Amino acid sequence: MSSAHTAIGQGVEFDAIRRMLERWGANARGVGDDAAVIPSIGDRSLVVSIDTSVENVHFRREWLTPREIGYRATAAALSDIAAMGARPLGILVAMTIPDGWRNELDGLTDGIGEASAKSAAPVIGGDTTRGHKLSLTITVLGTVRDALTRAGAQPGNSVYVTGRLGGPRAALRDLEAGRAPSEVNRERFAHPVPRILESAWLAANGATAAIDISDGLSAEVDHLASASKLSIIVRLEDVPAVEGVSPTDAVLSGEEYELLITGPASLDTAQFKERFGLDLTLIGEVTEGPIGAMITQNGKPVTLPAGYLHFTE
Amino acid sequence: MSSAHTAIGQGVEFDAIRRMLERWGANARGVGDDAAVIPSIGDRSLVVSIDTSVENVHFRREWLTPREIGYRATAAALSDIAAMGARPLGILVAMTIPDGWRNELDGLTDGIGEASAKSAAPVIGGDTTRGHKLSLTITVLGTVRDALTRAGAQPGNSVYVTGRLGGPRAALRDLEAGRAPSEVNRERFAHPVPRILESAWLAANGATAAIDISDGLSAEVDHLASASKLSIIVRLEDVPAVEGVSPTDAVLSGEEYELLITGPASLDTAQFKERFGLDLTLIGEVTEGPIGAMITQNGKPVTLPAGYLHFTE
Repeated sequence: MSSAHTAIGQGVEFDAIRRMLERWGANARGVGDDAAVIPSIGDRSLVVSIDTSVENVHFRREWLTPREIGYRATAAALSDIAAMGARPLGILVAMTIPDGWRNELDGLTDGIGEASAKSAAPVIGGDTTRGHKLSLTITVLGTVRDALTRAGAQPGNSVYVTGRLGGPRAALRDLEAGRAPSEVNRERFAHPVPRILESAWLAANGATAAIDISDGLSAEVDHLASASKLSIIVRLEDVPAVEGVSPTDAVLSGEEYELLITGPASLDTAQFKERFGLDLTLIGEVTEGPIGAMITQNGKPVTLPAGYLHFTE
Repeated sequence: MSSAHTAIGQGVEFDAIRRMLERWGANARGVGDDAAVIPSIGDRSLVVSIDTSVENVHFRREWLTPREIGYRATAAALSDIAAMGARPLGILVAMTIPDGWRNELDGLTDGIGEASAKSAAPVIGGDTTRGHKLSLTITVLGTVRDALTRAGAQPGNSVYVTGRLGGPRAALRDLEAGRAPSEVNRERFAHPVPRILESAWLAANGATAAIDISDGLSAEVDHLASASKLSIIVRLEDVPAVEGVSPTDAVLSGEEYELLITGPASLDTAQFKERFGLDLTLIGEVTEGPIGAMITQNGKPVTLPAGYLHFTE
């Protein structure tokens, strides 16, 4: 892809696109033709994912700044690439923009640009349209030599999670009750971080399977177990939670965008922590047995309340 | 990408996805992980585009069947790949589904599958979410050796268009007035055809630039001229229109998804017609001169009424 954009024609819609490209600067590349062209990806595999964030389904306008909304939608999409152990190649941004959001385009644009720049994933294409509710659909492209899938867990593997969970759920609970969340929890909700470099390190150090936590740890453990056709046990008491959050809330908290991985028992969690300033915590084991997830507390299976659901209007 | 899907976990949302995958059958491949993996694209370039269709912006529910809505959104997205002279690799489907559309999912799914199968572009990923209005965002991936861009027109090139224009505009006018459109015009509106094989033929036969007609011929001529930094003259009297449509309506008609191309004067339009059963018509010339489009009628410049606009609610 060339860093120069194709000259864009006349019209209000194109003015908006030109303004976005201006704000993105060097972080947008080769936009303006019918499709983006990426000259070659060598002998690596292509990885691609799509993710939609809709107003009043995935976020509320009064809880986040436009910049945060743009950042969060983009970071959430990039997290899918991290879950594959892949290196980002670029993103495409489809925006549905209601009239009432027209004045917030700069903020949205800057937030998208922030997430894109932080992950070295330039904007290479997009589409804008009118609509009733703000909606951002981000397609993320990446490349990888050996993809880290959900299906690679092996019996005898250990189960790990990055970071500390529960912040987004605690923040959401406060926001829904009209309370201000703690700064730490709000930050976890508004500024999730796609774990791209962390994932590459994990893959290089023997991780066998990975998934990012968008629906809550307990749901993701179930996805990993189903995909790998194995049993996965997670010890509730070992799940790392942010301060003031119960272990149960930590495993049900969605939109974390931390990584749940399986790999050898020997993974060097201390080296990981030193390198990334982020916890890597051993929380369970992969075994033969009935396919699915089992959460235990002090050795006994526990049943959790219904898991993560998007909030309803 | 493997043809097997990753086993998908439990939950209502996943039941809907499983049902879609069932209906798509062999036309969906390797869905269910965080991202789709395409093992290699060899030494070809990757081409990627994103396109959103929103209820009451791009279509109205009462005008089209759910199957047609799914087909049309997907065909429109695939048309961008055709405009690059590329071969489709696959599509990703992000659907925002209001509760009132839940019962129409099978029809939407089948329409997406129809367009995907006709263009040999399997579904390789997607995302579903709730929302207020039905919205389909389709990302299309393709590969190409030498991309046919908007910027490649050369002074002295001729300008051609595929098919016959005006059907979608005439159909829309009837639908908006509460009249039934003619069968031919309705078909052009409801079943646009991405000109993928045609585009490959044109590229192989010397086409220098291409764009698909989504906003109307006159707007697309302007885009081509801007991107190529040249003057493009189109003779209104030579623009091929469907029966009963004026030349002016033909050049303003949007959502045609025919191709506007530039290339040598020697392009064998008869051979094209014989091969594809579709007109290829010489309609103008590329020249040095003021950058932009000029529409002439019997040698004199004409000013057209305002071009194609999406209808408003």
